[in-house]
Amino acid sequence: MIIQLENTISPEHLSALEEKLSAIRYQTNRVKTQYGDYIIGVGKAAFDIRSIGTMPGVRDIHQVSDAYKLVSKKWRVEDTIINLGDGIQIGTGHFAIMAGPCSIESEAQVEKTVQHLQEQGVRIMRGGVYKPRSSPYSFRGLGIDGLKMWHQKAREAGIKIITEVMMVEQIEAMADYVDIFQVGARNSQNFNLLDALGEVDKPVLLKRGISGTIDELLQAAEYIFSNGNERIMLCERGIRSYEKAYRNTMDINAIAMLKEKTHLPVIADPSHGIGLRRYVDKIALASIMAGADGVIMEVHEQPEKAFSDGQQTLSFPEASRLYKRMHQAYELREHF
Amino acid sequence: MIIQLENTISPEHLSALEEKLSAIRYQTNRVKTQYGDYIIGVGKAAFDIRSIGTMPGVRDIHQVSDAYKLVSKKWRVEDTIINLGDGIQIGTGHFAIMAGPCSIESEAQVEKTVQHLQEQGVRIMRGGVYKPRSSPYSFRGLGIDGLKMWHQKAREAGIKIITEVMMVEQIEAMADYVDIFQVGARNSQNFNLLDALGEVDKPVLLKRGISGTIDELLQAAEYIFSNGNERIMLCERGIRSYEKAYRNTMDINAIAMLKEKTHLPVIADPSHGIGLRRYVDKIALASIMAGADGVIMEVHEQPEKAFSDGQQTLSFPEASRLYKRMHQAYELREHF
Amino acid sequence: MIIQLENTISPEHLSALEEKLSAIRYQTNRVKTQYGDYIIGVGKAAFDIRSIGTMPGVRDIHQVSDAYKLVSKKWRVEDTIINLGDGIQIGTGHFAIMAGPCSIESEAQVEKTVQHLQEQGVRIMRGGVYKPRSSPYSFRGLGIDGLKMWHQKAREAGIKIITEVMMVEQIEAMADYVDIFQVGARNSQNFNLLDALGEVDKPVLLKRGISGTIDELLQAAEYIFSNGNERIMLCERGIRSYEKAYRNTMDINAIAMLKEKTHLPVIADPSHGIGLRRYVDKIALASIMAGADGVIMEVHEQPEKAFSDGQQTLSFPEASRLYKRMHQAYELREHF
Amino acid sequence: MIIQLENTISPEHLSALEEKLSAIRYQTNRVKTQYGDYIIGVGKAAFDIRSIGTMPGVRDIHQVSDAYKLVSKKWRVEDTIINLGDGIQIGTGHFAIMAGPCSIESEAQVEKTVQHLQEQGVRIMRGGVYKPRSSPYSFRGLGIDGLKMWHQKAREAGIKIITEVMMVEQIEAMADYVDIFQVGARNSQNFNLLDALGEVDKPVLLKRGISGTIDELLQAAEYIFSNGNERIMLCERGIRSYEKAYRNTMDINAIAMLKEKTHLPVIADPSHGIGLRRYVDKIALASIMAGADGVIMEVHEQPEKAFSDGQQTLSFPEASRLYKRMHQAYELREHF
Repeated sequence: MIIQLENTISPEHLSALEEKLSAIRYQTNRVKTQYGDYIIGVGKAAFDIRSIGTMPGVRDIHQVSDAYKLVSKKWRVEDTIINLGDGIQIGTGHFAIMAGPCSIESEAQVEKTVQHLQEQGVRIMRGGVYKPRSSPYSFRGLGIDGLKMWHQKAREAGIKIITEVMMVEQIEAMADYVDIFQVGARNSQNFNLLDALGEVDKPVLLKRGISGTIDELLQAAEYIFSNGNERIMLCERGIRSYEKAYRNTMDINAIAMLKEKTHLPVIADPSHGIGLRRYVDKIALASIMAGADGVIMEVHEQPEKAFSDGQQTLSFPEASRLYKRMHQAYELREHF
Repeated sequence: MIIQLENTISPEHLSALEEKLSAIRYQTNRVKTQYGDYIIGVGKAAFDIRSIGTMPGVRDIHQVSDAYKLVSKKWRVEDTIINLGDGIQIGTGHFAIMAGPCSIESEAQVEKTVQHLQEQGVRIMRGGVYKPRSSPYSFRGLGIDGLKMWHQKAREAGIKIITEVMMVEQIEAMADYVDIFQVGARNSQNFNLLDALGEVDKPVLLKRGISGTIDELLQAAEYIFSNGNERIMLCERGIRSYEKAYRNTMDINAIAMLKEKTHLPVIADPSHGIGLRRYVDKIALASIMAGADGVIMEVHEQPEKAFSDGQQTLSFPEASRLYKRMHQAYELREHF
Repeated sequence: MIIQLENTISPEHLSALEEKLSAIRYQTNRVKTQYGDYIIGVGKAAFDIRSIGTMPGVRDIHQVSDAYKLVSKKWRVEDTIINLGDGIQIGTGHFAIMAGPCSIESEAQVEKTVQHLQEQGVRIMRGGVYKPRSSPYSFRGLGIDGLKMWHQKAREAGIKIITEVMMVEQIEAMADYVDIFQVGARNSQNFNLLDALGEVDKPVLLKRGISGTIDELLQAAEYIFSNGNERIMLCERGIRSYEKAYRNTMDINAIAMLKEKTHLPVIADPSHGIGLRRYVDKIALASIMAGADGVIMEVHEQPEKAFSDGQQTLSFPEASRLYKRMHQAYELREHF
Repeated sequence: MIIQLENTISPEHLSALEEKLSAIRYQTNRVKTQYGDYIIGVGKAAFDIRSIGTMPGVRDIHQVSDAYKLVSKKWRVEDTIINLGDGIQIGTGHFAIMAGPCSIESEAQVEKTVQHLQEQGVRIMRGGVYKPRSSPYSFRGLGIDGLKMWHQKAREAGIKIITEVMMVEQIEAMADYVDIFQVGARNSQNFNLLDALGEVDKPVLLKRGISGTIDELLQAAEYIFSNGNERIMLCERGIRSYEKAYRNTMDINAIAMLKEKTHLPVIADPSHGIGLRRYVDKIALASIMAGADGVIMEVHEQPEKAFSDGQQTLSFPEASRLYKRMHQAYELREHF
């Protein structure tokens, strides 16, 4: 159960409400976000929803039977649009492309990528400065200095930054240089990190776990929302299956289903979704038809020289052709 | 190694060729199909390919290192187009829709479906008369009599028939009433059935196993081809994954990859691919963007009353809207 | 619902019973096996079970809500023991070892294996004469002649034979030379084959599908039972998972659960369960602790020279050590 | 490549060594642990291993081609034994049982559990004070105060504590009250947490990820080791598969294989491995036969009243019977 409170609710009315909920043995969580003030009630008793909905200070009340509440479309029918400023929006009706290298490597690399994105009209750049690596002996990224350098170049070009945050301690230092915090697949159930990102007023792109379920993804998003941050995007990036022919198995079903279950924007990551450069374009276009609100993808001036994931990275000409096609596919879909 | 023989190859030249191959210790399989005459050689020795390619009676020779040979695109660059007659073709450049109920239930049902397909310009009707059912106590289909009734109605309307064959013994009786034999996911490695379908000059649609790999699917097709039948289509119908939110997980990656690996047409089955009616349209459209040459889908006048799989079956109005959108998506893709 | 009939039930009493079931809208299947005469009723209506149980000609009646009925432990509490003759039994309290090569290769190979088994007191020999092979170009086994040769050698030594049957047409010719028909993982939902094996009075070992569920395995067994053959064993042989370090993932949970769900014997196949020779012993012993009634495993005089699956095959000395350990583990388990 | 250094290596000799490695283009990582001083070299050039092995200050050098190095059995043949003090050891030859509730709930619960363990001779108690929960609205554990209370009760009884740590910030406060830090499945690739646990001189039990590979698990352990902590145990706790009949699929193969690949102790978690109380005993015993050095399991005075995972929790009498059987199975295995 979600109870939306009036901003102006008085302490007395709040107490009355809490007593009422306590009387029917509902456990409650108060949630305050950038945009709203809610009480989440979890309990089993049947009761007349109007008896609460009509109490003073209550704006609205919704029954949500799913394990996730605030991210559900059952109470918020209107889709969430995330505004990054400068006319850049993400969500239903606003197709977004986020492109860039796996890792931020050097100033020259950043400059070339920024120029490519500018020329192509892509407004959001991805790149890693903290890299989760299976082996402790691998390159782990340029860190905060790399981020600052990148931020300066991107700002000059009017380009927004999305990059992965791996631990709570990094958030504060990164916050001034990041437009979207990304939570990687390996941290999709790092609940402390999710909690902490709930306290930041920056959009978060949350990747599905490597073998995460739809339900787990939505509950992970609920962590962020219920800690105060409503600006969340979900990202399908391929799941682990028995098939060894590709690195991951893009789960197109998840995109279609998430768009029905939640009001949050859904982004597709075709680069990781298949992990093989020559197929990324088809997977990107398929994702759009399945309902994706945006695509995050890897591009590099010289994919074969890129750090780590070069084999799933498009060259600039390949990417440029794909941007155009994605817009065409999105247009078709929106005008069906 | 695939050696294409001239139709006119003399017994002497054939002997000379076989001796040559025996000398380099290649195990050979002679393959005669509707369209060609081949020797498949499997061995390890390195040798000068021209020394065989220039022998009399040899049209061409190709190195194919994959476990599958004849179905590989490595030797046959031009995609296979399957001609059903009456102007109906399946393969690159010829988008095909196959629609119909899970099971053929009654004459009235067939008539209504045929009429719907005619109105919508759909030329191929799917339906089951032999149903593979998990439980021995479930309805197993109307059998050969149902097929004959269906065939009569379909012929009158100029509509082709695709239906599943489950055992070798059924092939002969069915052959006169079927335009495409379908091999179901549970029989995707029923090698005797595959062998037998190699001896029939009817197209075969081969479904991927419930947890079959790309490689296994291609090798299953190789069974059919190497027994004499080149008219094969492959079908992605969703795989079994850990995710319980849908019945199967549509593997869009497989569609993209199969179109690169083989010259055979690739068909998508979005109905089984997700198993939930409300998402079938999105999965169908995504499959087209991933490269599918056609779509096979379940429709029924009253999905909620359909045998067995009603929950993944579209109504006629839903299907009609989707046919139109699929053609639009295909058009866009072909003109990128 | 399972209704056990008296052998002596009169046509009048049978008619009365069928009318009664029809009146409550239960769909019925008559099942006659080597041992019993049953009516399986499937329906939804609630009714007083005694009103049927007390009808003349009815021995007993049981409610079984699972999709599988006759193989369920819910109605038959006493476990099925399969008697192969000559004092060889399989089932609870009678541990069985089945060992032999992947493929029957030659007379010499059979002789050596038979001698090894005799020396070790192993009474059942496995081996393939019809091999399901992913590639059409691979060796497919010695066929019926190989089986006859093998049968002669085994009979002389008092050893029983288990071998795979791949198609309905093979059953009749094989039946005289086989003690247990094996259904392979790829045929675990080949329903026509299952039906046909229901009509034979030979024990059947049914392997779980490569990604088959517990429920599907039990329903596959139900096919055999409901066609007349109660002598069925189930076999866990590893499932397909995301893990690439081994060929299959032995599902020990399935063994433990099957022993609770069904009265049929449960056999473990550790050779395929992990697919790597050096671990087969540990997996075999673990399977026994999980509740297996027997083990089927690959042994060969020279594993590295064995056809196809040599890498999961034990040598005679390795196997001999394991037989002894398995008996010790079984003894411990039975005397806990 | 692992180079073991003498404790007494001089700065000059170290420089000479590093120059040598640099000359052959090996990237190096210096690793200092409680027990040793190592240089890990990663590179591709072939070189004469003796040319380094004979340098002054070098104790030994080993080629390890796996992605993981220090945790590999290829260089350290002798298995790691972890000494918890008070005569409690974990590793080859020292079977360990860790039992206790899912969550620490109350003083009374701790007292009853401690008493049960004392009576049964179990020396290590498990329990959660920080609980990773899918939903933000679920109970997340008693936290540090619960841990302190538990620690006091356990110390009095001579019982050691294993409990999960979820974030870097918790380590310091917990360290005085914990004997083994547990890393949960959801944090198995939380690399920052792994790094931080490398800097603590407390044993760490590292659970395999929910769909983690053997290789990822070993590389995660490598993070801890290469940051300075050699006292690591690995834990198989079931993987996510397509099978829905149980919560997880215990991967017995992993236990057998890990014991070959690494010198670290391997612990089985049968409670999560199947997730159903009635089968936990069989899975525990199977795990021992597969090679497990210990078992971690859930017990509760009243399983049906336990927080969260009661359905996989044994009662005290059930657990007592299992402890005895596990010792018997272990004895048998050790004396094969």
